[in-house]
Amino acid sequence: MARLDLSIGSVDLTRAICDIASVSGEEAELADAIYAEIAPLAHLDVHRDGNTIVARTGLGRSQRVVIAGHIDTVPINGNVPTRDVTVDGERYLWGRGTVDMKSGTAVQLKLAAELVAPRVDITWMWYDNEEVDSDLNGLTRLARTRPDLFAGDFAILGEPSDGQVEGGCNGTLRAVVRTHGVRAHSARAWMGENAIHRAAPILSRLAEYRPREIAVDGLVYREGLNAVRISGGVAGNVIPDLCEVEINFRFAPSRSLAEAEEHVRRVLEGFEVEVVDGAAGARPGLDAPLAQEFLAAVGAEPRPKYGWTDVARFAAMGVPAVNYGPGNPSLAHHDEEQVSYAQIEAVEQGLRAWLTAS
Amino acid sequence: MARLDLSIGSVDLTRAICDIASVSGEEAELADAIYAEIAPLAHLDVHRDGNTIVARTGLGRSQRVVIAGHIDTVPINGNVPTRDVTVDGERYLWGRGTVDMKSGTAVQLKLAAELVAPRVDITWMWYDNEEVDSDLNGLTRLARTRPDLFAGDFAILGEPSDGQVEGGCNGTLRAVVRTHGVRAHSARAWMGENAIHRAAPILSRLAEYRPREIAVDGLVYREGLNAVRISGGVAGNVIPDLCEVEINFRFAPSRSLAEAEEHVRRVLEGFEVEVVDGAAGARPGLDAPLAQEFLAAVGAEPRPKYGWTDVARFAAMGVPAVNYGPGNPSLAHHDEEQVSYAQIEAVEQGLRAWLTAS
Repeated sequence: MARLDLSIGSVDLTRAICDIASVSGEEAELADAIYAEIAPLAHLDVHRDGNTIVARTGLGRSQRVVIAGHIDTVPINGNVPTRDVTVDGERYLWGRGTVDMKSGTAVQLKLAAELVAPRVDITWMWYDNEEVDSDLNGLTRLARTRPDLFAGDFAILGEPSDGQVEGGCNGTLRAVVRTHGVRAHSARAWMGENAIHRAAPILSRLAEYRPREIAVDGLVYREGLNAVRISGGVAGNVIPDLCEVEINFRFAPSRSLAEAEEHVRRVLEGFEVEVVDGAAGARPGLDAPLAQEFLAAVGAEPRPKYGWTDVARFAAMGVPAVNYGPGNPSLAHHDEEQVSYAQIEAVEQGLRAWLTAS
Repeated sequence: MARLDLSIGSVDLTRAICDIASVSGEEAELADAIYAEIAPLAHLDVHRDGNTIVARTGLGRSQRVVIAGHIDTVPINGNVPTRDVTVDGERYLWGRGTVDMKSGTAVQLKLAAELVAPRVDITWMWYDNEEVDSDLNGLTRLARTRPDLFAGDFAILGEPSDGQVEGGCNGTLRAVVRTHGVRAHSARAWMGENAIHRAAPILSRLAEYRPREIAVDGLVYREGLNAVRISGGVAGNVIPDLCEVEINFRFAPSRSLAEAEEHVRRVLEGFEVEVVDGAAGARPGLDAPLAQEFLAAVGAEPRPKYGWTDVARFAAMGVPAVNYGPGNPSLAHHDEEQVSYAQIEAVEQGLRAWLTAS
């Protein structure tokens, strides 16, 4: 089994855990290596469920913070093992997982081993299958079997946020919008009804749609309503009887999932709309006292998170949650995924400063 | 080998040749059976090229008529062997090929054997692979190896025309219209450009397009411009960078293929248009003296042909050509393909009357 040394620098630890490939569903080797280092630590009470590991301090502090990071990545595309690269004099660690989100997880692992007496009690969570169906997500499983482990006054997800604090997250909803017609030979088109032509107003409304910017608890969330797929047609000489437009609505956390659906149905009024998938967003939760202290300690300007993350899961359980991790989110899942050394170290210092402040 | 008796009634002969399955590319058994009956006939000079058979009278008449029919069908879908059905007291032969176009070919085979001294010289052509790529069509091959066999003053294609005379045919052009964009994560849509949204004006223009009705040599051709396929999209969370709309323009024979392309480019001005396929139509050619005599003899009202047929091939070679055959063209390729006994017999009588008139 691969061995990890949690006392080395957070950049080196990031490199080590990136080089243990752990595409969703194949996290066992990395989870075993983490468990082997964490389980013996006297200051942590450790629980393992599959490839999800929870480690808690039990210092009797008045407040508890949950700090979580997933250990899986999207598929590798020639970018493991990692490489060291230098861009404009700045050093980067390049490869799958460096941004999303093993650098954030590495910082957490290092601090979990190091901080035997933090100022708040901490529940560390390292979990599997974040990059795939929500049903498979380690936190979904854990919320069913051990909901008590999620208890806390504040939560921090180490998702990439460029070293800044990104509050809450937008929600997401996917739907299929359908038009129907009547097939006919295209030489006698007037005997049919063209379903693709009928989709013209759907595309026009999407093209003309002006997404809103909505302030929620002081952060401004940009929404977006987009066609992400379109298909229709039978053959080169047949008038098509079906056209399907798949749309994705990213909505501010001030809307509930039901309100988001209502909005989409209003925009596409007159068309058949089938919602196929959806998850509410999360309000930034920055008005919580612990959140205010956290912002002050890490010295970061809070920004809104646009992508959906597991902060929404904590928010739904009543735990205010933010994203705070190294790495540019635009490089997540990218073949050129890479993170600067400086950002990993800054997040390590930021978290340590807050967790050890007196 | 299957044996054919060309002296039986044309309905029975249609049944016999429908029950010898001959989907495009698999016509050998039927071609062999036809050749075995036609080759020995003393009044015909017979040429075979693959599964295409040409049989000519050589009576020294002042005029020559080409009468042609294809022997292949589109794929079978549980509709061979044929069945006899009765609808509202009228008898029908049901099954693949009954309409398109073995009933027309059966009438031709019967008359080819029977008419030893018609009033004009006749070139009979029965050919393979009409229902697939033009490159495979038996007439394409024959035009290359024996163009002299196409010589004539008038041509009749036995394609289904409901027992009426359908003059000329519309042309057809297929093109792909593309829009491009820039990929981005759909959570940050403003970093990309949505190619599907950009296709909105393409669909609007097609939906608003009012096809013309154009009179050519006294017949009115209905045109049509339609999207037949659309596709675009990468994944449920990605702003798409490409959308492709395949369109099919059916155009009156008064337009050349180049003019049809120009028209499509004008309608879709501002978009990338790639023509992928096209064939000019054919003017009805009903002003030819033989055509006038033919119309008078069969007692039919001429109508325009909307679908593209091999009449266009003859027209391009300077031979006026019409479609005249049993069967409702709307049932061609249909799983419920069927032709009335009465219409097969009417076409047989019409052709015989004209070819034997004194």
